[in-house]
Amino acid sequence: MKDATMDVAEIEKLIIDVPDYPKPGILFKDITPILQEPSAFASSISLMGQAIAECDAIAAVEARGFIFGSALALYMKKPLILLRKPGKLPRKTFTKEYALEYGSDSIQIHQDAIEKNARYVIIDDVLATGGTALASADLISDHGGVISGFGFILTISVLAGVDRISRNYPRATIRSLLTT
Amino acid sequence: MKDATMDVAEIEKLIIDVPDYPKPGILFKDITPILQEPSAFASSISLMGQAIAECDAIAAVEARGFIFGSALALYMKKPLILLRKPGKLPRKTFTKEYALEYGSDSIQIHQDAIEKNARYVIIDDVLATGGTALASADLISDHGGVISGFGFILTISVLAGVDRISRNYPRATIRSLLTT
Repeated sequence: MKDATMDVAEIEKLIIDVPDYPKPGILFKDITPILQEPSAFASSISLMGQAIAECDAIAAVEARGFIFGSALALYMKKPLILLRKPGKLPRKTFTKEYALEYGSDSIQIHQDAIEKNARYVIIDDVLATGGTALASADLISDHGGVISGFGFILTISVLAGVDRISRNYPRATIRSLLTT
Repeated sequence: MKDATMDVAEIEKLIIDVPDYPKPGILFKDITPILQEPSAFASSISLMGQAIAECDAIAAVEARGFIFGSALALYMKKPLILLRKPGKLPRKTFTKEYALEYGSDSIQIHQDAIEKNARYVIIDDVLATGGTALASADLISDHGGVISGFGFILTISVLAGVDRISRNYPRATIRSLLTT
């Protein structure tokens, strides 16, 4: 743990609660102060790197997942593949649609980013209901990849994302640096 | 250069040209294969880290700039601040509008992400016309930050982004790992 100079409790103190964002009644957890503190960011990546499942590649979810997924891929010397919003990837893609509270959204991946039987860990910053993480995992596993795990900086436990993910991926390791 | 096991020519070979994306007549440079090759990604970050200007923080532009900015901030042990599309940052922001070929766009930053007289390097993946990079720099310098440099993975020289940036920021160091 030589790179982890801050512990989880110290990192957690940096998160700023923003009431009523993005809409009234929601308490948004702003993780950007972690990024502004190099020792907190390095410690987060080091601790996540030790906690997440064995894998052959890191799959990062746009946009804040790119921040942690990229640093983690560099730290772990693993390939980084991108899960993007529709229309952002220039070559042939696979698409997965998923339901939101109101309406639906979808996520895309380059077809050649998925290798059959390779193991992927899905990385995003915050686990809420798990809809995006689950769609990301389905997109990869529908096309031959194996989901060995999920990694988040923060899990909002009241939204039960862990339950939802583990029902669908009982063999995947779900890890979160912080939990509220 | 111990971390740079691939040289620039080897990294460049990984970029895939995508004709007519996002619209007819445009040759899109897809940098995602660099991310899928850990030695190429690590080398890119190491080479960029050595090339860019002295700074107190890395300012990464959404969304692909997050990938390189984040890894660079980790590698250089510098604070990372985010330049985001409108409505994505939860706390008080500053906004800069800028012209596109048709219409306009804008970019935001958290107000407390800018420290007076601190030196920032703007990081994005591709330098095209320079509109987004320039708006990002203006957003920071309008509020007291100093732009010491710009760093890109790829510069498309025919679009003259370097000229445009250097006219506005003559003292900033503009670096690009690759140039076409």
